[in-house]
Amino acid sequence: MHQATHRLTVSTSGRGFRELTSEIVRWLAQRNVTTGLLTVFCRHTSASLLIQENADPDVLKDLEAFFERLAPEESGRYVHDAEGPDDMPSHIRAALTQTQLSIPVVSGKMVLGTWQGIYLLEHRRAPHRREIVLHFLGE
Amino acid sequence: MHQATHRLTVSTSGRGFRELTSEIVRWLAQRNVTTGLLTVFCRHTSASLLIQENADPDVLKDLEAFFERLAPEESGRYVHDAEGPDDMPSHIRAALTQTQLSIPVVSGKMVLGTWQGIYLLEHRRAPHRREIVLHFLGE
Amino acid sequence: MHQATHRLTVSTSGRGFRELTSEIVRWLAQRNVTTGLLTVFCRHTSASLLIQENADPDVLKDLEAFFERLAPEESGRYVHDAEGPDDMPSHIRAALTQTQLSIPVVSGKMVLGTWQGIYLLEHRRAPHRREIVLHFLGE
Repeated sequence: MHQATHRLTVSTSGRGFRELTSEIVRWLAQRNVTTGLLTVFCRHTSASLLIQENADPDVLKDLEAFFERLAPEESGRYVHDAEGPDDMPSHIRAALTQTQLSIPVVSGKMVLGTWQGIYLLEHRRAPHRREIVLHFLGE
Repeated sequence: MHQATHRLTVSTSGRGFRELTSEIVRWLAQRNVTTGLLTVFCRHTSASLLIQENADPDVLKDLEAFFERLAPEESGRYVHDAEGPDDMPSHIRAALTQTQLSIPVVSGKMVLGTWQGIYLLEHRRAPHRREIVLHFLGE
Repeated sequence: MHQATHRLTVSTSGRGFRELTSEIVRWLAQRNVTTGLLTVFCRHTSASLLIQENADPDVLKDLEAFFERLAPEESGRYVHDAEGPDDMPSHIRAALTQTQLSIPVVSGKMVLGTWQGIYLLEHRRAPHRREIVLHFLGE
């Protein structure tokens, strides 16, 4: 049985979807593993993770618009606004998506479907440096 | 330490909840395991997973109605509609629920609560064949 | 390779956020582990889990207000109301948050970020006793 962990630092350019799939695939390939469970963990509460379609970028734009309607940046709507109008909407978006994803690995590869990509969602307006932890357990 | 993986193919009859619990219980029973972690992974972005009450079917109907109000099929509402008006609402429903679930196994059984069932949520209107990966890691 | 499981019983005082972080940290410390994966599993469909900011309590109040608007307790809105007006809103809140969280453990500690706390969300109005399963797999 084999374990490996890695801290991935990702620079975001403000609100939006940042695909992590190829970085995770590359890290996994270097581990020389066969079967196991890969966990991706986001160490933040105003950024989060999501597996979504990586074919048509319009899907991500529509998701963005959906969250904008669901948790608008509206003056007076939230009590917590210490860091600006995008502060609380960021926490709401993070609460509705994922902080952690675990993906089975078979024959050395994650079992992602054809159209699935792993995304880091930056919810804040300003660019941030985000820390993602990768953990593999298997053989 | 022991690992096992399985690809479960599920035919859905269009939008709705399809319970997977008994199929997963059966697969696990055949593995002859005691303690570990079972992961269920959905290889799609317009279908997803959810643990919900499996006693009163009205819970699932109300959840369906909730998602219908939250992400309606409305002409002009979404940019991405290549596969029809149910295309983008499907991605939104998948984003708000789970692509992956991991459930501890103790004494050979998942630790599900009395009323918990594991569901595949088909979000598209048309019937689909969906691939679910099961992975067990433990002993 | 090492495994450990524990059933944590939590008494809630009705709807709200109950932080579990210190109880989980304590249990983990007693296991004397180094590296692995810790899974937290909630055995209920009207209570759930969430990793959120544990610094400013206003974040939790705003999240509560968000869910109140999103799935209001409204007479006639839901079919399933056997246990009262807070019954179905509880299932919806549970569906939109997490039943399970898996967190990598490095050097004996969960890799939570500085502001991250692990919360049990009680969605029902009345106090409940909730069962949470902890499972560690690693070394």
